[in-house]
Amino acid sequence: MKFEFENPTHLVFGAGTLSQIGEIVRKHGKKALLVTGGGSVKRNGTFERALSSLNAAGVTVIECAGVEPNPRLSSVMRGAQIARDEGCDIVIGMGGGSTMDAAKVMAAAVNYEGDPWEMIIHGQDNWRLPTSALPIITVPTLAATGSEMNGGAVVTNEKTTVKSFVIAKCLYPRVAIVDPELTLSVPPDQTAFGICDLITHVTESYFNGADGTPLQDRFAEGVILTAMEWGPKAVTDGNNLEARAQVQWASVVALNGWVQVGTAGAFPVHIIEHVLSAHHDIAHGAGLSVVNPAWMRFAAQTRPARFARFAQRIFGLSLKHPDDRDAAMEGIDRFEAFLHSIGCPTRLSQLEIGDALLERYAHDTVHIIHDGEGHLPGRPPMSEEDIVEILRSAL
Amino acid sequence: MKFEFENPTHLVFGAGTLSQIGEIVRKHGKKALLVTGGGSVKRNGTFERALSSLNAAGVTVIECAGVEPNPRLSSVMRGAQIARDEGCDIVIGMGGGSTMDAAKVMAAAVNYEGDPWEMIIHGQDNWRLPTSALPIITVPTLAATGSEMNGGAVVTNEKTTVKSFVIAKCLYPRVAIVDPELTLSVPPDQTAFGICDLITHVTESYFNGADGTPLQDRFAEGVILTAMEWGPKAVTDGNNLEARAQVQWASVVALNGWVQVGTAGAFPVHIIEHVLSAHHDIAHGAGLSVVNPAWMRFAAQTRPARFARFAQRIFGLSLKHPDDRDAAMEGIDRFEAFLHSIGCPTRLSQLEIGDALLERYAHDTVHIIHDGEGHLPGRPPMSEEDIVEILRSAL
Repeated sequence: MKFEFENPTHLVFGAGTLSQIGEIVRKHGKKALLVTGGGSVKRNGTFERALSSLNAAGVTVIECAGVEPNPRLSSVMRGAQIARDEGCDIVIGMGGGSTMDAAKVMAAAVNYEGDPWEMIIHGQDNWRLPTSALPIITVPTLAATGSEMNGGAVVTNEKTTVKSFVIAKCLYPRVAIVDPELTLSVPPDQTAFGICDLITHVTESYFNGADGTPLQDRFAEGVILTAMEWGPKAVTDGNNLEARAQVQWASVVALNGWVQVGTAGAFPVHIIEHVLSAHHDIAHGAGLSVVNPAWMRFAAQTRPARFARFAQRIFGLSLKHPDDRDAAMEGIDRFEAFLHSIGCPTRLSQLEIGDALLERYAHDTVHIIHDGEGHLPGRPPMSEEDIVEILRSAL
Repeated sequence: MKFEFENPTHLVFGAGTLSQIGEIVRKHGKKALLVTGGGSVKRNGTFERALSSLNAAGVTVIECAGVEPNPRLSSVMRGAQIARDEGCDIVIGMGGGSTMDAAKVMAAAVNYEGDPWEMIIHGQDNWRLPTSALPIITVPTLAATGSEMNGGAVVTNEKTTVKSFVIAKCLYPRVAIVDPELTLSVPPDQTAFGICDLITHVTESYFNGADGTPLQDRFAEGVILTAMEWGPKAVTDGNNLEARAQVQWASVVALNGWVQVGTAGAFPVHIIEHVLSAHHDIAHGAGLSVVNPAWMRFAAQTRPARFARFAQRIFGLSLKHPDDRDAAMEGIDRFEAFLHSIGCPTRLSQLEIGDALLERYAHDTVHIIHDGEGHLPGRPPMSEEDIVEILRSAL
């Protein structure tokens, strides 16, 4: 193990913490660009409560509403322009992962020279990380992406149908205000998609990361077991604040770096799903729920021991030997059954995706990131044919 | 769960990272107070390698050697005076927990108005946290205290025989350079004491923390299981770099806040041990190894379910029911046997501590921290009589 780690985000977690937003934001800025999504924060009163706290603290608020799921580059550019025009000195992302991601990239785009798309990895040569951003405050209203406490963001270029990501130090939020009460109104399907998303964040590094990271393995298993224990309760009873809190806490930890640290893992399932949602505008977590088990069955062929251990530690299966393929496949079946049980799709047909564009998805995936030999990084690295095979198995 | 979390320390982890110390320190200062302990870093070449890197980067080094185990207030004041006299603008703590802790408090003491002992919790009314410190760089040479990546420090006032701690935001190191190669020369007994120390960091919050933190429970178990898997290998073969790395990584995580976050737990075993080592100048980890199992047997009487779960998840014991006291006690026995197996003491007599001062230890413990009713905070809170009983059971 050789790695560096730094996560400077100040996390404020707990029911009712939204009321602190005014005093928190005031420490970092006076005029805030408040970025929101499709309007749920207005319908459920979150927006008004935040505005009231911000105004009471003397923070001027400029609104940037309407960030869509799978947030578009045009929305990022619109928000950055508003921030420039209005002279905002801080950006608040209040909503799901899409809203927070868009807000983060807006904050970096305000002073970014040139086309902001150049900071997003999309196979280009002229890629330039952003080096500065306005202070960012995140207020998640969904337990899923973990964007509230990391330096990553995902944006879709709607002109080229490419969805990809940026990870930069300047994108770490100054403060993440994580109030599980804000997730009480999330419907069961979106709740389930969020649970799938957070679990997939840790399965990516668990299955694709470096060998020799036993502590990180235990942490990943801890996130999965906690999400599987509390997730169904949050899906079944959306008003169960305890379940909402446990799921949201798991979602923060699943991608704030504590689990991935030192694993240097690729995120192949995410990259494949990004291509699907760029083409079909599906919910990210729903797409992951289809792709992840299919990918697991493919990857288990080359690393059965790893998947057998997953089956043992997550589902308590006994192994006949460390390479027990039967146990490995049984573990994947059980994982897929869990996703199904909370209402997640597990076939592409449930997302109304057919086989017409399988080669195109595979091509786009490898175009975003490849290992120099035309393979998508991961364990194992995957050719376009491999990706087609995985997706075909999930039709 | 309601909590805040922030840990801004930049961690640089891995074999060989010591060579980066010059460039790292140079980013934060030009004239460094280099704090070391009893001389092992000079004997094994670590000091020379660091000095060479620092000088090459243009950093002037002022030495403060000779910090003793259970570092004394007088050493802290001596170091702070050197830093003031020499105009140092950064402090490097290179050594074990004692050296790093002393360096951290020195960095805060340089500009602290009044007696630095006032920043250490010791039952006083005029307690004042330090609010600023010179930038701190930590270079641990022992896997144990986790001091390299947190905002805490423990100091002993040799005049009053009180050993206690301070936790402050300004004490977080800017950078922790954690190079497992530096621990290769640690002898088996000190290696074992470090393993006991790191495990005790997570058992404290596991057994004394708030209810309803399932993810933190899993993380704590992950640290314990990893330390129990790799620790014996590091004790048996000090040159096993892989084992050294896993143990050191576990020691970082055991007290950088990732496990304790949101648990709000007291550290009663540490407080009791601090009193023992203030009186007898024993190794901290050795003292913990005696006190922790004795404390567990006491605490298990009031919370058998918690200890039964520990037995189940750490040692794979089957429970007849959640409150299974037999399993709880069997788990504690096995834990004590593990400590014994790696060469840690488990009786006070092995530390040459008798029963003459039991009441004095108990009195001192409660004097440092109490709950307002004369009890040491923890689950359960403990009276002086309880502490005497625990220590007597470990004679």
